[in-house]
Amino acid sequence: MLARSVELFNTHGYDATSMSDLAAHLGLTKSAIYHHVPSKEALLRAALDEALDGLGSAIDEVAGPDRSAEQRLRAAVEASVRVLVARQPAVTLLLRVRGNSPVEQAALARRRELDQRLTALVREAVEEGALRDDLEPELVSRLLFGTVNSLVEWYRPGGPVSPDDLAAALTTLVFDGLVRR
Amino acid sequence: MLARSVELFNTHGYDATSMSDLAAHLGLTKSAIYHHVPSKEALLRAALDEALDGLGSAIDEVAGPDRSAEQRLRAAVEASVRVLVARQPAVTLLLRVRGNSPVEQAALARRRELDQRLTALVREAVEEGALRDDLEPELVSRLLFGTVNSLVEWYRPGGPVSPDDLAAALTTLVFDGLVRR
Repeated sequence: MLARSVELFNTHGYDATSMSDLAAHLGLTKSAIYHHVPSKEALLRAALDEALDGLGSAIDEVAGPDRSAEQRLRAAVEASVRVLVARQPAVTLLLRVRGNSPVEQAALARRRELDQRLTALVREAVEEGALRDDLEPELVSRLLFGTVNSLVEWYRPGGPVSPDDLAAALTTLVFDGLVRR
Repeated sequence: MLARSVELFNTHGYDATSMSDLAAHLGLTKSAIYHHVPSKEALLRAALDEALDGLGSAIDEVAGPDRSAEQRLRAAVEASVRVLVARQPAVTLLLRVRGNSPVEQAALARRRELDQRLTALVREAVEEGALRDDLEPELVSRLLFGTVNSLVEWYRPGGPVSPDDLAAALTTLVFDGLVRR
């Protein structure tokens, strides 16, 4: 039920989708939906948590005292691509959140926290000498994860590019660049 | 009137915005709007043309027999960033178009044509030996312009990063990579 609700939110917009629209889309009565979830907002919260938990784990998992900051950042970018592919509808919904309600504001606050952790990782990789120091870490982090986030607009699993190839190509592009060495 | 209409379309979604909403937002009567434009769709078409004409010019302008394909591609990326900053509301609207009407389908067709020109430019730069050949040109083009398009989500003119610095940072990232040489 969550997956099909998120699909409808992404097609028509969360605000523009009523419980009646949801009931029609799910082939249920409104009271049948209320039997499972207390409100439309509870579905939104569950979907945003799905996206944010995934993206948070992608950063948590790369930690390790024996890995350089650059290795951890590369791993975080690759893991983020995989989360985005695996949880594309929920991440799409997250990326469209504008803060119109306390649930949306809480999601934006969690997103900012993730952004700060990633910016800190970029800064650490610059300081250890692995990454170029002529670009602001905050700007680099924005561009890096802008590239990752933009995948929701065009990437579809099951097409010619596998998730692993996608993660590898994106990481090569941003770390090593397009120019032949 | 076009700028303020696009603002409303971007906030609430084009489909969800009625002529009455527009009239209220613009402080005009509906008949005053109809005096200037025949329909809501005419405003959409004008905004999408503004975005597409700008992005098309960004590719046209880089042509020149004395420039390598890599130089033209770099210039196209930088010019696209500048168009996106200068015409951010119209480009934002364009990026949300899903093909729900003939006007939207025509805009998607023009976008695909631009994508094909950019992919051809990437391929040419690979063939001349300037760019790495281990990534598919179509995938590279998607990632490159995904990075550019993602700027609409966070970049605001007048902030700490100038449009020129933004264009330079993005181009450095994707062509030269983050890794220190």
